[in-house]
Amino acid sequence: MSKLRFNITMSLDGYVAGPNQSVENPLGERAFHLHDWAIPTRTFRSLHGDTSGGETGINDDVLREAFDNLGATIMGRHMFGAARGPWGKDPWQGWWGDNPPFHHAVFVLTHHEREPLPMQGGTTFFFVTDGIESALEQARRAAAGKDVALGGGANIIQQYLAAGLVDEMDIHIVPFLLGGGERLFANLDAHKLKLEPIRAIAGPGVAHLKYRVLK
Amino acid sequence: MSKLRFNITMSLDGYVAGPNQSVENPLGERAFHLHDWAIPTRTFRSLHGDTSGGETGINDDVLREAFDNLGATIMGRHMFGAARGPWGKDPWQGWWGDNPPFHHAVFVLTHHEREPLPMQGGTTFFFVTDGIESALEQARRAAAGKDVALGGGANIIQQYLAAGLVDEMDIHIVPFLLGGGERLFANLDAHKLKLEPIRAIAGPGVAHLKYRVLK
Repeated sequence: MSKLRFNITMSLDGYVAGPNQSVENPLGERAFHLHDWAIPTRTFRSLHGDTSGGETGINDDVLREAFDNLGATIMGRHMFGAARGPWGKDPWQGWWGDNPPFHHAVFVLTHHEREPLPMQGGTTFFFVTDGIESALEQARRAAAGKDVALGGGANIIQQYLAAGLVDEMDIHIVPFLLGGGERLFANLDAHKLKLEPIRAIAGPGVAHLKYRVLK
Repeated sequence: MSKLRFNITMSLDGYVAGPNQSVENPLGERAFHLHDWAIPTRTFRSLHGDTSGGETGINDDVLREAFDNLGATIMGRHMFGAARGPWGKDPWQGWWGDNPPFHHAVFVLTHHEREPLPMQGGTTFFFVTDGIESALEQARRAAAGKDVALGGGANIIQQYLAAGLVDEMDIHIVPFLLGGGERLFANLDAHKLKLEPIRAIAGPGVAHLKYRVLK
């Protein structure tokens, strides 16, 4: 059964992005340390085309599991790029260069239509203008039985959580505060979300919490 | 070396109390499940005078460690009681009945003077009106080399964190959202707080994260 799941790094005070996201600061101010734990791992390097090494251990195991068996990714437009409004001429091609680390179909939720954008390494960005259910349907079809990843940001995750469509989540809690920005668990009906903890384990510089969403 | 430390249960969305605290709802609305993980444990029962049993295991181990080697507790007035302003006649004696679960000196931060209040089982409440440093000094003296616990609530913990006086913290993260109330890590200078993770382990229904505060 294909699951919809996300894995995201959150500061101890609950933020997944800092304030004032921009092209220079795609994660918002002061948030660039969120992924310090992931970047040195073998899995992260390998997804980014560097097969020469990287750290193994708990952080690598957790990350490899999070990216294992994924057939498609859904993300919000703000995760794809900082620009707003119509795409214009010479439109933004994502933060990730010519060979993005997804290596499968990526569905970008937007209000503005755009032709699919094939990249190197198996990633194609598809732009979806008819809502989260449609994006999920298209992603499931593309995933062909594998799981679908919800890439973020917070707003898109909240929409899928509110709609009861998320199956599992990995929250990587890092030991610092951001003090502002985008909170992951905001704008939700707190009563409605029922979670079952799957595990909590510590890697260097991060605590990995995993939950199943009860339906 | 006597440490100042706190252990507190936080919802996954960062709240340690729900909205609208009152005598009927001392933790605020919808927050009464925060401590579901702790209440069945042997340690919790024993602190509350019931030595007849209780669950053992990870949750009990973590709680026993948190309450081990404590010689005094500091808390805010809002944790001691819901009333505000002068104490008046027949003043509030705390939420915990005749035999509170502290069994040592408890220093209550307040703007209103009051005589010490001795209870059964070794707990005496002292009311401190000259600030958090004075309360810590008095608590350290009472603890006679043992650690001092910071009981809460969020506001008092924030004051001690901002003053750089906290040494260790145990955050017990429970798998639900409160959606409102008091956030633990608010009103702080996010840059200043430097944390070193000590561990993350899962017990039934809760993830136990422990941090050292770097000076």
